[in-house]
Amino acid sequence: MARNNRGVAELRPISFEPNVMKHPEGSCLVKFGDTHVMCTASVEEKVPVFLRNKGQGWITAEYSMLPRATNTRTERESAKGRLTGRTQEIQRLVGRALRSAVNLKSLGERQIHIDCDVIQADGGTRTASICGGYVALALACKKLMAQHTIRQPPLLDSVAAVSCGIVGSVALVDLDYEEDSNAYVDANFVMTGVGKLIEVQATGEGGAFTSDQMNNLLLMASTGIKEITRKQIEALSMF
Amino acid sequence: MARNNRGVAELRPISFEPNVMKHPEGSCLVKFGDTHVMCTASVEEKVPVFLRNKGQGWITAEYSMLPRATNTRTERESAKGRLTGRTQEIQRLVGRALRSAVNLKSLGERQIHIDCDVIQADGGTRTASICGGYVALALACKKLMAQHTIRQPPLLDSVAAVSCGIVGSVALVDLDYEEDSNAYVDANFVMTGVGKLIEVQATGEGGAFTSDQMNNLLLMASTGIKEITRKQIEALSMF
Amino acid sequence: MARNNRGVAELRPISFEPNVMKHPEGSCLVKFGDTHVMCTASVEEKVPVFLRNKGQGWITAEYSMLPRATNTRTERESAKGRLTGRTQEIQRLVGRALRSAVNLKSLGERQIHIDCDVIQADGGTRTASICGGYVALALACKKLMAQHTIRQPPLLDSVAAVSCGIVGSVALVDLDYEEDSNAYVDANFVMTGVGKLIEVQATGEGGAFTSDQMNNLLLMASTGIKEITRKQIEALSMF
Amino acid sequence: MARNNRGVAELRPISFEPNVMKHPEGSCLVKFGDTHVMCTASVEEKVPVFLRNKGQGWITAEYSMLPRATNTRTERESAKGRLTGRTQEIQRLVGRALRSAVNLKSLGERQIHIDCDVIQADGGTRTASICGGYVALALACKKLMAQHTIRQPPLLDSVAAVSCGIVGSVALVDLDYEEDSNAYVDANFVMTGVGKLIEVQATGEGGAFTSDQMNNLLLMASTGIKEITRKQIEALSMF
Amino acid sequence: MARNNRGVAELRPISFEPNVMKHPEGSCLVKFGDTHVMCTASVEEKVPVFLRNKGQGWITAEYSMLPRATNTRTERESAKGRLTGRTQEIQRLVGRALRSAVNLKSLGERQIHIDCDVIQADGGTRTASICGGYVALALACKKLMAQHTIRQPPLLDSVAAVSCGIVGSVALVDLDYEEDSNAYVDANFVMTGVGKLIEVQATGEGGAFTSDQMNNLLLMASTGIKEITRKQIEALSMF
Amino acid sequence: MARNNRGVAELRPISFEPNVMKHPEGSCLVKFGDTHVMCTASVEEKVPVFLRNKGQGWITAEYSMLPRATNTRTERESAKGRLTGRTQEIQRLVGRALRSAVNLKSLGERQIHIDCDVIQADGGTRTASICGGYVALALACKKLMAQHTIRQPPLLDSVAAVSCGIVGSVALVDLDYEEDSNAYVDANFVMTGVGKLIEVQATGEGGAFTSDQMNNLLLMASTGIKEITRKQIEALSMF
Repeated sequence: MARNNRGVAELRPISFEPNVMKHPEGSCLVKFGDTHVMCTASVEEKVPVFLRNKGQGWITAEYSMLPRATNTRTERESAKGRLTGRTQEIQRLVGRALRSAVNLKSLGERQIHIDCDVIQADGGTRTASICGGYVALALACKKLMAQHTIRQPPLLDSVAAVSCGIVGSVALVDLDYEEDSNAYVDANFVMTGVGKLIEVQATGEGGAFTSDQMNNLLLMASTGIKEITRKQIEALSMF
Repeated sequence: MARNNRGVAELRPISFEPNVMKHPEGSCLVKFGDTHVMCTASVEEKVPVFLRNKGQGWITAEYSMLPRATNTRTERESAKGRLTGRTQEIQRLVGRALRSAVNLKSLGERQIHIDCDVIQADGGTRTASICGGYVALALACKKLMAQHTIRQPPLLDSVAAVSCGIVGSVALVDLDYEEDSNAYVDANFVMTGVGKLIEVQATGEGGAFTSDQMNNLLLMASTGIKEITRKQIEALSMF
Repeated sequence: MARNNRGVAELRPISFEPNVMKHPEGSCLVKFGDTHVMCTASVEEKVPVFLRNKGQGWITAEYSMLPRATNTRTERESAKGRLTGRTQEIQRLVGRALRSAVNLKSLGERQIHIDCDVIQADGGTRTASICGGYVALALACKKLMAQHTIRQPPLLDSVAAVSCGIVGSVALVDLDYEEDSNAYVDANFVMTGVGKLIEVQATGEGGAFTSDQMNNLLLMASTGIKEITRKQIEALSMF
Repeated sequence: MARNNRGVAELRPISFEPNVMKHPEGSCLVKFGDTHVMCTASVEEKVPVFLRNKGQGWITAEYSMLPRATNTRTERESAKGRLTGRTQEIQRLVGRALRSAVNLKSLGERQIHIDCDVIQADGGTRTASICGGYVALALACKKLMAQHTIRQPPLLDSVAAVSCGIVGSVALVDLDYEEDSNAYVDANFVMTGVGKLIEVQATGEGGAFTSDQMNNLLLMASTGIKEITRKQIEALSMF
Repeated sequence: MARNNRGVAELRPISFEPNVMKHPEGSCLVKFGDTHVMCTASVEEKVPVFLRNKGQGWITAEYSMLPRATNTRTERESAKGRLTGRTQEIQRLVGRALRSAVNLKSLGERQIHIDCDVIQADGGTRTASICGGYVALALACKKLMAQHTIRQPPLLDSVAAVSCGIVGSVALVDLDYEEDSNAYVDANFVMTGVGKLIEVQATGEGGAFTSDQMNNLLLMASTGIKEITRKQIEALSMF
Repeated sequence: MARNNRGVAELRPISFEPNVMKHPEGSCLVKFGDTHVMCTASVEEKVPVFLRNKGQGWITAEYSMLPRATNTRTERESAKGRLTGRTQEIQRLVGRALRSAVNLKSLGERQIHIDCDVIQADGGTRTASICGGYVALALACKKLMAQHTIRQPPLLDSVAAVSCGIVGSVALVDLDYEEDSNAYVDANFVMTGVGKLIEVQATGEGGAFTSDQMNNLLLMASTGIKEITRKQIEALSMF
């Protein structure tokens, strides 16, 4: 299987550029090959209504793509006046994934907004958003600790994610857009730094699949996520 | 583990009432315990714009809850003027699940709308919607065949779904609302009649989980879905 | 005039099934022939902004149809993002009709939401909603009294409604969809249990009409509403 | 009963100023006392989708109030992003009333938009809109006839409307805002020039009412509408 | 250059009719030829959220056109559910222009809404709105002073505006719709009573223009605004 | 006047990075100091409805900011469901400015969408958008020429823009956010490569200003735009 000289279990070139933005409390430009996502973490000194006076914080995520991040131009959701189902699904996933890594009590009554804006898209934007969003979040938490705004480190473990899929009869990790478009089974895995699962989503786009195929994808994801975790730690070690 | 006298691997009382509605091409009132969903299948003699003149059909799903299906009244999405992320996520899931069971070419250039309206909710409304939606869809397909509108049976296999979860340290199948609210891990499985996977979604609501726990849930779901499939076949055999 | 074996002044088979729902404070599944409406009453412990601190309660109504309640599928108002004029007109009518039967001061500063969801439609859904809505409301009031939440019975009288119309040159009561579609004059009457008027709406769909025709319809409605009132009382007597 | 020197059955000073606007095919500034409504009729050379290729025309109405037409400023519906239920109810009423006066086949495949913009409000804006809307419509029809765009006069009869109500125990015609606010029963009647009914709407705002009271209001309305009809004819005779 | 007998630097017939409305604190019907705008000033005893407890007031403006103010009917923004960019641009301009003339601290914590509703349009509606809006605002301020609600006159100077443009190679002032449609350069100037600039907007609709042309337009505007200012003072002197 | 070591007539460090994106026909990352805007040009092979079959093309612009481009997080317009007035004003300005540089007939019946997404904001985002948008547009036009899709170069001249303002009593060019916040007069100028004006906008934020001040700002802008034009040409010369 020729894959632009990549092995089936090989990730694309990955990089995390921490604190690239002037204004946010934390930020990270994450690249998985030609997929580039700008992730920022913004601290707000109040929580959503449903959490008021409960002595805990909250993490929420928003996701968007520049109109020409994609091969053909996509109409802006602001012009349409509403979010698509896909966008809502992704922001719910990213928020859920990052919240699972945080002790919300340690945050105090404040909210961290994670904004994931896809500058350029080539498959795997939601998993890249989780990976880069984690780095932005960790940087914002470090800042809050350094300012003594919070006393206890709120992060329980790191969080990373990767896509897997079956194209033809071959299982692949970290699919680019073309591979993803041809995948028979399409899966996303979110895991912690110690290798436990946070979220599993697998869909038979082209038909049904077996438990064995499912387990195979899970193993591949596990290996890929270990490597991504190393790069996240490396990026964070600069600050 | 006392569970209202249910075993951990035992489903709630389940029933499918086929063709309960006067107007639709197919309909099914499905009950999983106190969760009741009215599913209808409506045939429309045209396809969405993106499929025009491609010689195939389409299946789409919509999901809604009566405002007082739930314990406290939920504001109508029509009054709010937009669908919540949860609703969009569910209707995308139901549509994807049912499409995977259909040979869209056999349908011809027509669309079947599956409407899932939750009359009463007590956990598991999305999986009940898939199960009942399949029965409504199958009835509509039978009608199209009986009228000679289509010539080839479009259904490739049956489709059913069930929720699983870990409450405390115990894995349970077909969770009711209270169990679901306390679940540490929450999962939904969609499978075909022959036992292959169509969709897997598992989330660590209360923290991370292991591959072994994941596999355990998958096994439980598999057993439950076999029983549901039998009941679907039974309901359809009346028509 | 053959009318599916019904006389011109004869109602369709009518039934009220009280408290059919698990969650609401009051509920009633009302059937006028093939028109089936699920009515629920939900008590909320606060009033709308314009009534705050005025020492009185409020009754409000919402109305919706399942997409396939009708012969051809109707697009959901939640998907359209706005309520149609017809829906708003009906919910205003139902709310006004039920409020007229209630001593709002006795309710205290709480609001009762009446939700009328048409499961199946065959003409007369707005008048059925008023009739079933009244039963749900009365059940919720009984519950509030039984719990000693309120001390004075808030209901002043019962409320019922029926449609009348002129088809060809014949005046009919309780029109089904086909009759309604052919009606020259279309009217709805809302009355109290003692036979006084709450609301009169008459429209010459096919041209103008005389005062005598108007009075004739009013008389027919009066007789029909007496019978409906008896059935409401009967249904409420179970609780 | 002192009523600013008006008798109970006496209308306010009424005037119709025809063709006051530069651009529309027909226009009329109608005044009922301090209620002033600008009505315009705009001819469009196409019909709504549901009437395409059916060889007939359509009349539609829209209604709005300037924000400060009322005693306290009302937020614009364009700023809110949606029409209120009251506005939709009124525009449906005006449209229905005017359509009943027109032979839609004579119009050919064209639509006439009646816009009713309340410049100043003091009660009775919906009935004033019908009265002024009729004059604007009639002027537009005259123009179409004069241009030989249509050959048969499309108007079957004239249309006028008036409000009635019971304040205290006294029945009044053409209520101003203060009277309307205190009315026990509130009614609107739409009639043709020959005195037949087109629409009756009566609501017991303060409680139930009897058939005799209803008939009394109808008689008062009938007398008032005759006078309004005379003024409409007079205004139209100038063109 | 024949211009309906107007010189190139000559304004159309202009009139200000102050306090023509019954309800508002200030109002003015302004006419520039066939452009007629109803301007009202409504005082509200609270300020927008961003100004709460800052000891100052606010002026805000809204702009709308009757659907048939224009030659062909324009769809209502309330029916579309959103404001066009043009409307938002104009209301921002009018609000900014009028605020510049007011000492917001003297107003106290209250807001004045300026509503500009175009009854009939023939070019220059935004500049007419500023001119008439100023008169309505001044009348409302006089009323607040007369009632001793505020103690210090809040108006610093008067405000007026006029359009200029280059049609062919000729510079014109106060363009009507036809002239405006053919203008190569289109400009609007807002000035104070003592002749200083508040806002300059110039656009090369048909191509680029020189600084000399720009200065020429500015001079013309300056002369026109002096005349408008005289008429504003005259209208205000009646009250 | 100390200005971070900048003279009053000195621009911030400016750079144009052409064709930085993978997918668009033309793109440019433009930086004015800490203001960074990603501009893309997307060619679409159809024109808006109002231009169909008129033998010409169209240029349209959209503008948005990443939520944390600013010092405090700004809510997304997609989440609000509508564009703010500021956004609409800017996109109208950018579109108008770029259209003035293009022979729309040479484009044929195709539309070029200019998307300006502010990655980081520090004042002058609208003028930066025009400057970068021009480069993206020019690159897309070059590509259309190279592909022989169009035959005549559609660009008539280059377009650039800069902001000017008066802070205290000093006139400055290319204001950053802090300077802009303190400006008494705020102006934007759009000019062609040969130094003619396309658009002038000047507002007295803190009070009125004189014609002399206006002319002074115009001169400063003229000098700044010459330098920007040189950098645009340089960037374009690489392709």
